[in-house]
Amino acid sequence: MKTETTFKPGLEGVIAAETAISLLDTEQEKIVIKGHDLIELSKHNDYLDIVHLLLENKLPSKEEKAALEEKLKERYQVPSAIIEILRLLPEHTHPMDGMRTGLSALAGYDEHLLDRSLAVNKDRAYDLLAKLPAITVNSYRILNKQEPVLPRKDLSYSANFLYMITGEVPTAQRAEIFDRSLLLYSEHEMPNSTFTARVIASTQSDLFGALTGAVASLKGHLHGGANEAVMYMLNEVDSVEGFEELLMKKLHNKEKIMGFGHRVYMKKMDPRALMMKQSLKKLCETKGDFQLLEMCEAGEEVMRREKELYPNLDYYAAPVYWLLGIPIELYTPIFFSARTVGLSAHVIEQHQNNRLFRPRVHYIGEKY
Amino acid sequence: MKTETTFKPGLEGVIAAETAISLLDTEQEKIVIKGHDLIELSKHNDYLDIVHLLLENKLPSKEEKAALEEKLKERYQVPSAIIEILRLLPEHTHPMDGMRTGLSALAGYDEHLLDRSLAVNKDRAYDLLAKLPAITVNSYRILNKQEPVLPRKDLSYSANFLYMITGEVPTAQRAEIFDRSLLLYSEHEMPNSTFTARVIASTQSDLFGALTGAVASLKGHLHGGANEAVMYMLNEVDSVEGFEELLMKKLHNKEKIMGFGHRVYMKKMDPRALMMKQSLKKLCETKGDFQLLEMCEAGEEVMRREKELYPNLDYYAAPVYWLLGIPIELYTPIFFSARTVGLSAHVIEQHQNNRLFRPRVHYIGEKY
Repeated sequence: MKTETTFKPGLEGVIAAETAISLLDTEQEKIVIKGHDLIELSKHNDYLDIVHLLLENKLPSKEEKAALEEKLKERYQVPSAIIEILRLLPEHTHPMDGMRTGLSALAGYDEHLLDRSLAVNKDRAYDLLAKLPAITVNSYRILNKQEPVLPRKDLSYSANFLYMITGEVPTAQRAEIFDRSLLLYSEHEMPNSTFTARVIASTQSDLFGALTGAVASLKGHLHGGANEAVMYMLNEVDSVEGFEELLMKKLHNKEKIMGFGHRVYMKKMDPRALMMKQSLKKLCETKGDFQLLEMCEAGEEVMRREKELYPNLDYYAAPVYWLLGIPIELYTPIFFSARTVGLSAHVIEQHQNNRLFRPRVHYIGEKY
Repeated sequence: MKTETTFKPGLEGVIAAETAISLLDTEQEKIVIKGHDLIELSKHNDYLDIVHLLLENKLPSKEEKAALEEKLKERYQVPSAIIEILRLLPEHTHPMDGMRTGLSALAGYDEHLLDRSLAVNKDRAYDLLAKLPAITVNSYRILNKQEPVLPRKDLSYSANFLYMITGEVPTAQRAEIFDRSLLLYSEHEMPNSTFTARVIASTQSDLFGALTGAVASLKGHLHGGANEAVMYMLNEVDSVEGFEELLMKKLHNKEKIMGFGHRVYMKKMDPRALMMKQSLKKLCETKGDFQLLEMCEAGEEVMRREKELYPNLDYYAAPVYWLLGIPIELYTPIFFSARTVGLSAHVIEQHQNNRLFRPRVHYIGEKY
């Protein structure tokens, strides 16, 4: 077979879709979102701006953003049966699995599930953006035997999300830092979870199904699960020297170290990691305690020196979320919640111009 | 970008994995499963033989098959909380969505969820094979306000499955025909759902997550949902002439007609469809009523004449399931349940020799 020669494990470098949504331009070192540079956006805009950009193709006016926030708040309420379903899950369920189950169950409430038109799909995406913070947080709370928390409409979208997680109304600084993390996680071209969502959507399956698959993908340690893994690693030690030793030991044992490297960026630092590192600095300054930053910087140095590997977003998101008081098991669910808008944009695009994904294989099994 | 020129929408013809599991050999017109011809297997073997072949790499001895059946029966019992979760789903939930939710929730019961070793993964696959018939059927029953049904261990694996669906112990002929349909659905190289499962598994996510995504994929009308769509179409009319007219009208309106064509087989008949057509003939003979067979044959002729398209497995599975007394909404869930073994084999293979799926895109959006 001629095709044999073109086999690229993991489809590395293979173009799997045409998209008007985003691009990792490694030559210009830009994460392009609908023609905008994500890093520039993160300096001047907030998460809801990106939501509007991704779903309505342009940054919102002040009025449009207010209307968007109002629309989301109107739809905060999660059906009580979803909360009951979360209560029935066995206690060792991971919050990502709880979230996946809740999201899957939510499909039954959609009265137009077979309608994949642009308008209905967009409306569905807004509905999910409105409800996912509560599903995310309550999935965790219920599994930890805490009472579900209700959203507060007097707070901004992101401040409410952080409030539901921590139980405290965040300061302006903390709300902004959390909001920027959602923005940086919002969309990133074609990672595994986005690819999963598009592959599923290409059978004409619905947004709920595509996103349920994406949760499963993002849970993996080689993908979104990395931010949790980084924090568990940082928590194994309590000093800069201890962290350097831990990394050297792991390198010596040829263990995979999470939070470093990225197939697309290769030998450069993920530009989002740099922004998140600045957030970490701010939180350390406010706290008057720089140990976590110093540990992370030391780890960065070890990995550059030993492996020429650079931090990715997850590496600096982990300590930022730690200082924001977020339980570790919620790091990946928050990543998913933030990415819902990007995933929805990709599913909508796939439905608008569809071709079923159906690749072939190279058979290396028993002769016949 | 050079890569641009290699973009194949839907990854058509692109090799996405090396596999020792199966191949659609279009030149020799064979569906190869671990070195065996699926059509030959369907003449001499039953579903549990294929289960053993796919998970243990060889056809079982009589003793091995008995042990396998015993192992599955020991694990029939579905946790009661899963049944309670199904009861909480809103009444318009599609059984595929109910199944997806039940399967997702089941992950919380796996005490070794992070263990992806061959032995544990295989054990997990057997557990799913044991429980999925009950989840499939009871998801449908509960959504239709019927009481859940319990499996009967005195029947064979497939006879019990059909018994749970219809509430009647099947005749030997009906049990065998149902068993062969499961066998024909068991594994088929790299359709969208299998690709979905492998893409998810490549993040090191677990079997439950990979299969949850596969349910979402299979639900789509361009994939597993086709068997349901065929039956709804057959039920729109009540004569051979009526069916011919319906197809001609749909062709005239440029509607997509389900059950015909297959990207890989192209201009040939899906060999599984031929086997299923023989099952349809047998059921018609027993019933003494050939109308459904005649309608299907007339439809086959129309599509060959007008579009040079040939039936796929779903086209003949639909009327067979109809005559077996299976509710239409269960056609796709049964397909999924049968395919669980093939999907599990692929996830296991992916975990054994992994490379994260992470393709690229061709950006056609706003200039920057």
